[in-house]
Amino acid sequence: MPLDPLSTKFAALADPTRRAILARLALGETSVSELAQPFAMSLPAVSKHLKVLENAGLITRGREAQWRPARIEPEAFKEVDSWLDRYRQLWEEHFDRLDAYLKRLQAKEKNKKKRVAVKRRRTPR
Amino acid sequence: MPLDPLSTKFAALADPTRRAILARLALGETSVSELAQPFAMSLPAVSKHLKVLENAGLITRGREAQWRPARIEPEAFKEVDSWLDRYRQLWEEHFDRLDAYLKRLQAKEKNKKKRVAVKRRRTPR
Repeated sequence: MPLDPLSTKFAALADPTRRAILARLALGETSVSELAQPFAMSLPAVSKHLKVLENAGLITRGREAQWRPARIEPEAFKEVDSWLDRYRQLWEEHFDRLDAYLKRLQAKEKNKKKRVAVKRRRTPR
Repeated sequence: MPLDPLSTKFAALADPTRRAILARLALGETSVSELAQPFAMSLPAVSKHLKVLENAGLITRGREAQWRPARIEPEAFKEVDSWLDRYRQLWEEHFDRLDAYLKRLQAKEKNKKKRVAVKRRRTPR
C-alpha cells in the first residue's frame, strides 16, 4: 500500500544519515559527489538516500544531466510543521503548568524561610 | 540496529492510524477499548500501535492493571519541533522571497497599466 504524503515524509526523516544530508543541503544545493565526501559513503548509497528524500518531496534535483544538484524543498517542511501545530498548544500548556508549579514551590520555600527568620527574631537567645 | 530517539519518533509518526490515535489522545487520556471503537480495529491491533507510540516516547501508559490509560507526552513533540527549527528559517526566507517576487510582479503590472493610460490621454482620438 503506498504511503500518504505525510507518512512518506516522516518515513524519510526516520534515518540519521538522511537528516544529516538535509542539514548539509540547508546550507545550499550541492551535487551527489560533494555530498558523499563528508559522509564517507559510496555514490550509489548517497543516491539511494536522495531518492527517498526526493520521493518524499523534501528535496528536488536539478535536471542537468552531468550535475544534478540536490536542493531542499522548504514547503515540504512547512507541511510537517503544520501537522505539529495542534500538539504545540499541548506542550505550551504543559510548560505553563510546570512553570506555575515551580513558582508555587519557590513561593512556598520563600514563605517557609521567612517564617523561620521571624521565629528566630522573636525567640530570645 | 536500534534507531536513535528522533528516528524512532519519525518512524512512529509515519503511519496515518498512529497519527489519528495521537489526534484522539490530544483531546485527553483514554483506554485501549475506547480508542478501538472509532477506528473499527481489534484491541490487539490498537495495542500494537500504542506500543510503537510508547516506545517512541510519544505517549505514556498508566500503570493501573485493568485500565491502562494512554496519554500524550507533550515534550516528545517539542523535540520534533526543535529539530524543525533550522528548516523554519529556510521556508520563512522562501516565503519572503516569494512575497517580494509577487509584489514586484504586481508593481510591474500597475506601472504598465499606468503607462498605457498616460499614452491614451496623450494620443488625440
